[in-house]
Amino acid sequence: MDLPFVGDITHFYKNEAPDEIRKSIENAGAKDILAPSYPYKKLMGRKAYDAQMEQLQLELVKLQSDFITSGKRLVVLFEGRDAAGKGGAISRLRENLNPRIAKNVALPKPTEREAGEWYFQRYVDHLPTKGEVRMFDRSWYNRGVVEHVFGFCTPDQRAHFFAQLPDFERLLADEGYHLVKIWLNVGRAEQLRRFLEREQDPLKQWKLSWIDVEGLKKWDAYSEAITETLTRTHTEFAPWTVIRADDKRRARLETIKSILKCIDYKEKSEIPEIDYSICGGPEMWNG
Amino acid sequence: MDLPFVGDITHFYKNEAPDEIRKSIENAGAKDILAPSYPYKKLMGRKAYDAQMEQLQLELVKLQSDFITSGKRLVVLFEGRDAAGKGGAISRLRENLNPRIAKNVALPKPTEREAGEWYFQRYVDHLPTKGEVRMFDRSWYNRGVVEHVFGFCTPDQRAHFFAQLPDFERLLADEGYHLVKIWLNVGRAEQLRRFLEREQDPLKQWKLSWIDVEGLKKWDAYSEAITETLTRTHTEFAPWTVIRADDKRRARLETIKSILKCIDYKEKSEIPEIDYSICGGPEMWNG
Amino acid sequence: MDLPFVGDITHFYKNEAPDEIRKSIENAGAKDILAPSYPYKKLMGRKAYDAQMEQLQLELVKLQSDFITSGKRLVVLFEGRDAAGKGGAISRLRENLNPRIAKNVALPKPTEREAGEWYFQRYVDHLPTKGEVRMFDRSWYNRGVVEHVFGFCTPDQRAHFFAQLPDFERLLADEGYHLVKIWLNVGRAEQLRRFLEREQDPLKQWKLSWIDVEGLKKWDAYSEAITETLTRTHTEFAPWTVIRADDKRRARLETIKSILKCIDYKEKSEIPEIDYSICGGPEMWNG
Amino acid sequence: MDLPFVGDITHFYKNEAPDEIRKSIENAGAKDILAPSYPYKKLMGRKAYDAQMEQLQLELVKLQSDFITSGKRLVVLFEGRDAAGKGGAISRLRENLNPRIAKNVALPKPTEREAGEWYFQRYVDHLPTKGEVRMFDRSWYNRGVVEHVFGFCTPDQRAHFFAQLPDFERLLADEGYHLVKIWLNVGRAEQLRRFLEREQDPLKQWKLSWIDVEGLKKWDAYSEAITETLTRTHTEFAPWTVIRADDKRRARLETIKSILKCIDYKEKSEIPEIDYSICGGPEMWNG
Ligand SMILES: Nc1ncnc2c1ncn2[C@@H]1O[C@H](COP(=O)(O)OP(=O)(O)O)[C@@H](O)[C@H]1O
Ligand SMILES: Nc1ncnc2c1ncn2[C@@H]1O[C@H](COP(=O)(O)OP(=O)(O)O)[C@@H](O)[C@H]1O
Ligand SMILES: Nc1ncnc2c1ncn2[C@@H]1O[C@H](COP(=O)(O)OP(=O)(O)O)[C@@H](O)[C@H]1O
Ligand SMILES: Nc1ncnc2c1ncn2[C@@H]1O[C@H](COP(=O)(O)O)[C@@H](O)[C@H]1O
Repeated sequence: MDLPFVGDITHFYKNEAPDEIRKSIENAGAKDILAPSYPYKKLMGRKAYDAQMEQLQLELVKLQSDFITSGKRLVVLFEGRDAAGKGGAISRLRENLNPRIAKNVALPKPTEREAGEWYFQRYVDHLPTKGEVRMFDRSWYNRGVVEHVFGFCTPDQRAHFFAQLPDFERLLADEGYHLVKIWLNVGRAEQLRRFLEREQDPLKQWKLSWIDVEGLKKWDAYSEAITETLTRTHTEFAPWTVIRADDKRRARLETIKSILKCIDYKEKSEIPEIDYSICGGPEMWNG
Repeated sequence: MDLPFVGDITHFYKNEAPDEIRKSIENAGAKDILAPSYPYKKLMGRKAYDAQMEQLQLELVKLQSDFITSGKRLVVLFEGRDAAGKGGAISRLRENLNPRIAKNVALPKPTEREAGEWYFQRYVDHLPTKGEVRMFDRSWYNRGVVEHVFGFCTPDQRAHFFAQLPDFERLLADEGYHLVKIWLNVGRAEQLRRFLEREQDPLKQWKLSWIDVEGLKKWDAYSEAITETLTRTHTEFAPWTVIRADDKRRARLETIKSILKCIDYKEKSEIPEIDYSICGGPEMWNG
Repeated sequence: MDLPFVGDITHFYKNEAPDEIRKSIENAGAKDILAPSYPYKKLMGRKAYDAQMEQLQLELVKLQSDFITSGKRLVVLFEGRDAAGKGGAISRLRENLNPRIAKNVALPKPTEREAGEWYFQRYVDHLPTKGEVRMFDRSWYNRGVVEHVFGFCTPDQRAHFFAQLPDFERLLADEGYHLVKIWLNVGRAEQLRRFLEREQDPLKQWKLSWIDVEGLKKWDAYSEAITETLTRTHTEFAPWTVIRADDKRRARLETIKSILKCIDYKEKSEIPEIDYSICGGPEMWNG
Repeated sequence: MDLPFVGDITHFYKNEAPDEIRKSIENAGAKDILAPSYPYKKLMGRKAYDAQMEQLQLELVKLQSDFITSGKRLVVLFEGRDAAGKGGAISRLRENLNPRIAKNVALPKPTEREAGEWYFQRYVDHLPTKGEVRMFDRSWYNRGVVEHVFGFCTPDQRAHFFAQLPDFERLLADEGYHLVKIWLNVGRAEQLRRFLEREQDPLKQWKLSWIDVEGLKKWDAYSEAITETLTRTHTEFAPWTVIRADDKRRARLETIKSILKCIDYKEKSEIPEIDYSICGGPEMWNG
C-alpha cells in the first residue's frame, strides 16, 4: 500500500518541528504528559480511570432513560485540533447508549450545493428531535478555525459567520436544546506524538490527511484563529467548556462530567467534581 | 365516489353562512367582485390580463437567467386563507421557469419526528442554494394562524414562535436571501363562492378537506389570528406584502410585480407600477 | 440575455437539415401534420379534443379515488426524443390529480456517487408506495438511447443494462405495480419545427440544451438505438405502448386512454377506443 | 429507572425454560461453551484471539486501500437470532476502517410508507457505491424469519418474498457487488445466558426488547423459519456462510476470514484457513 502521507510526519518531526518540541518527545516516557504547564506529570492510571468511567457510564444510561420519557434534547459540539481526541471522547460517550438515540454527526466538506446554502443549513438538518442526543464531531465552528487557516472561506464569510453565530445559538438555546460546546485542547508536542504514533501504526495510517500534515506547519495560525473564536463565541447562553486533553483519560472524564452537570434527569446521582485545573472556560485555553 | 366533504359546503352556505354573505353570492354575476370595499367592481378582462402577464413572464425569465450567473437566491412565502389563490399564483410564477431552479415547497403536516424538532428546522431544509428560487405554499406562518385556530399548537408554542421569528428571519435576510412574504387576502363571500364552485366541480371536489369545511365556521378566529400575525411579523428586514385577492387575475399580477420590484437582475425592464389600491403592507388587510 | 444555444437550431435548419425536411416545414401551415405517413393530415380541433379530454380527466379523478382506498400503485414511464411531448403529456395527466399522490420524477444526470451505484438504484428510490402514481419523465431507458448515442455509457454498461432489464421489470410487475411504458414517437420534421418554435419564443429559449442541438445531427443514431431498445425490452409483463406524437393532442388522448385501459377502478366508465392507427406496440414505431 | 423488560428473562429462565437448558447454564463455568455439539469445550483464549485478529485487521485495512482505488463494492448481510453476536462482529469489522467507507445499516421497522413500497426498496437505498462496504445488521431476510414468527407479514407476503429473492440477489451479484451472507448460529442455552447477562448489567438492560423476551418462547418457530429460509435462499451466486457463534471470538474470526477469502485485493496475504468445524454452508446450521 502506498499511503499518501506516511513519512510526512516523520519528515516534519525531524526537519521542521521546533527544537524544544522534538526534545520533549524524545525524552518522554510513554506515560509522561508532555505539556509542561499541565497540572499532572503522568497519565491517569487505568484502574482509577475505569472506576470513574463506569460510574459515569451508568449516569449516561440513566440520562438516556430520562430522555426517552421527558423528550429532552441534547446537542454536544466537539471541537479541537486534529488528534485532540474528539473521536475517542465521542466513542466513550456513546458506548452504552442506543445508537438510534445518541448519534454522531461528522459532516464531510460541503458539496457545491451546500456551499451555496445558508452556512448553518446543513447542520440544522441534524439537530435532534425529542429524546435524542447529537454529538457533532466538528461543527459550524469549522468556519472559525480550519476553513480560515486553510483559506476555505473568505474573510467576509468568516466575519459573517461571527456576526450570525450568537443569534443562531441563542435560537437553539431558547428553543430548549441543551447545548454543550466542548473544546479539547492538546499541546503541540502531544499532538505531534499522536501523529507519529498514527504514522507508525499500519492500522491507523490511512487516517492521516493532507490537512493533518499541513496543519502541523500552521500551529500559530491555528492558535490565533482558536483564540479569536473562543473569545467571540463564548456567550452566556452557549458557553464553551475548554478541556486540556493532553491526558486522554482525564479529558474523557471531564467531558462526560461537564455534560452530566448541565442536565437534570431522573435518579441522577451526585456527579464527581469537575477538575478545574484542566477544565474550565476559554481562560483554560493556552494555545 | 363517496367524497367525504361534498355537500358540506352547500350545507354551510344554506344554513350557517351570514345572511349578507349568502345574498351577496346569490345576487352576483360571474364577473362581479363580491367584496364591497374592493376598488374594482368587475374581474379584470382576459385580454388586458394576458398582455400584462406576458410582459411579466418575460421578466421572470430574465430574472432566472440572471440568477444562474449571479447566484442570487430568492424565497417567496405565500400565505392566505384556503382558496385565497396561493396555488394559482405559484403556478403562474413557475410557468416558464426551469422546474429545477424554481421549486414549490408545500410541506404536509409535521411527522412526529418533525413535531419534536426545532420548529423552523423542516423549513430550513428547503432553503434554496445559489441561483435558486423557492416558493413556499404555506410556510412557518402556519403556527401563527391555522395551527392556532385549530388547536394544533399550544399557546406557549405560538408565543415562542413569535419570539423566535424576527431573529430567524433576520438571519435569512442578513445571509443575503431575497425574502418576499406575500399575504393573499380574500373576502368571506368570495372564499365561500370558490368553495361552492369546487364542490360542484367533479374534477376539483377531492381538494376539499376537513380543514376547509371547519375553517368556514371559524372566520372570525382566523381574522383575529391573521391580524395578530401580520402586526407582529411585519419587520423592516422582512416586510409583508398584502394583496387583495378577490380578483385572482389582479392578484397574480401584483404578486409577480411585487417580487420583481424587489430584485435587480440583468436586462431588467421597467416593471409596471404596483396597484396600491389592492397591494400594500398590513394596512391593506381588512379581514 | 446571451442564451447559449439560440441560433443553433436555425443554423442547423438552414445549413444541415435534409432538404425534404426543410421543405416540409417551409410549406406547412400551422395546423398541418408534417409526417407524410401519419394517418391524419390536420391537427385535431380544439373542441373535439377538449370534450374527450374532459371525459378522460374525470376518469383519472375516479382512478385516484380508487387508489386511495385500494392502495393500487402505478408507474408510468415516458420516453421519446426531445420535443416529443413527454412533459406536456405528463402535465395533462396530473392536471386534476393531487400532487401528493401523482408525482413527476425527472432525474438529473447521475451524480458521481450515483454513477457508482447499481444502475437502477436511483430509480427504485422513487417507486410509489400504496395509493400513489409516479410518472417518470425519462427513465432507466436513458441507458438504451441517449447515454448510448452520446457516449455517456460504455457498450458494456449498455449490454449489462439490457441483460438486467427484463429481470428488473419482472420483479416490479410481479410485485403488483401497474407498469405502463409509453414511447412518444415524433417525426423528424415535426421535431425540428418544435425546436424552431422554442428558439423563437423568448419564454422557452432557455429550455434548449446542448443535447437538443447535438441530437438533431444524430437522428439516425437515435433511430437505431430506439429500434434496438424497443425490440429488446418489449415483454409480456412490461410491454411498450408506442404513440405517434406528431399531433400533440391526439397523443395526449391516446396516452391517457392507454393508461386507463390497463387498470380497473371503481365506477370506471367505458373508455373510448384506442386509435390503433397511431397507438400500438413497437411495430408502430417508424423512426 | 423502570426498565420495561428487566425481570422477564429471569422469569422465563426460572419458570419456562426447558430443564436441560436451565441445568446447562447453572452448571457451566464462565469460559465453558454451552452447546454440547460444539467442537470446542472452552472459549478461545484472549491471546490467541488477539494475535489472529490483529493480522486480520491488517488485511481489512489493505482491502480498504484497494477498494478506494479499484472501486470494488461489498455488501455483507448479518443474520442470526437476537444475541447471536451480529453487532459485535460488525464492530470488529469496522474497527479500523474509515466510517465514511464502511457503514453499518440497521433499519428500524418499516414506516407505513415503506410498508407500502416494494419490499426490497428501502434496502436498495443503502447499497454501496464504488469503493464502499455496507454491513447490514439484519436485512431483507427479516421477512423470512422474524416477521414470519411474529406475524408482521402475511404468509402471502412471505411466499412472494421467497419468489422474488433469487432474482433480486442475482441482479446484485450480476451487477458486480461482492455479496457475503453471514448467518450467526447461537445455541439455545447460550442465547439465554447472554440475555441473563444483559438483564443483570445496568449498562445493557435497555437493550432488551419485547421481541427478545417473546422470542425466547418461540425458539422452535424460529428454528423452523430459519431452516426454511436457509434452504430456500442458498444459491450459487449468493450462498450462505453459517457460523456457529457460541464462542463469540471464534465466530468473529471466521466472519472476517470468510469475507476476506471471497475478495481479491492488492497486497493480500494468505488468509488463515477457515475452521470448517464451525463455519460452512447451511448444513452447519443445527437449530
Ligand atoms: N475544501 C474544504 N472546504 C471546507 N471545509 C473543508 C474543506 N476540506 C476539508 N474541510 C474540513 O476540514 C476539516 C478537517 O479536515 P480533516 O483533518 O481532513 O478531517 P478529520 O478531522 O475528519 O480527520 C473537516 O471537517 C473537513 O470537512
Ligand atoms: N395536525 C396538524 N398539525 C399541524 N398542522 C396541520 C395539522 N393538520 C393540518 N395542518 C396544516 O394545516 C394547513 C391547512 O390544511 P389544509 O387546508 O387541509 O391544506 P391545504 O391548504 O394544502 O389544502 C396545512 O399546511 C397542513 O399541513
Ligand atoms: N453525462 C451524462 N450522463 C448520463 N446522462 C446524461 C448526461 N448528460 C445528460 N444526460 C441525460 O440525458 C437526458 C437528455 O438531456 P436533455 O435533453 O438535456 O434533458 P431534457 O430532456 O430534460 O431537456 C437527460 O435525462 C439527462 O439526465
Ligand atoms: N411491526 C414490525 N414489522 C416488521 N418488522 C418488525 C416489526 N417490529 C420489529 N420488527 C423487526 O424485527 C427485528 C427484531 O427486533 P428487535 O429484536 O427489537 O431488534 C428488527 O429488525 C425490527 O425492525
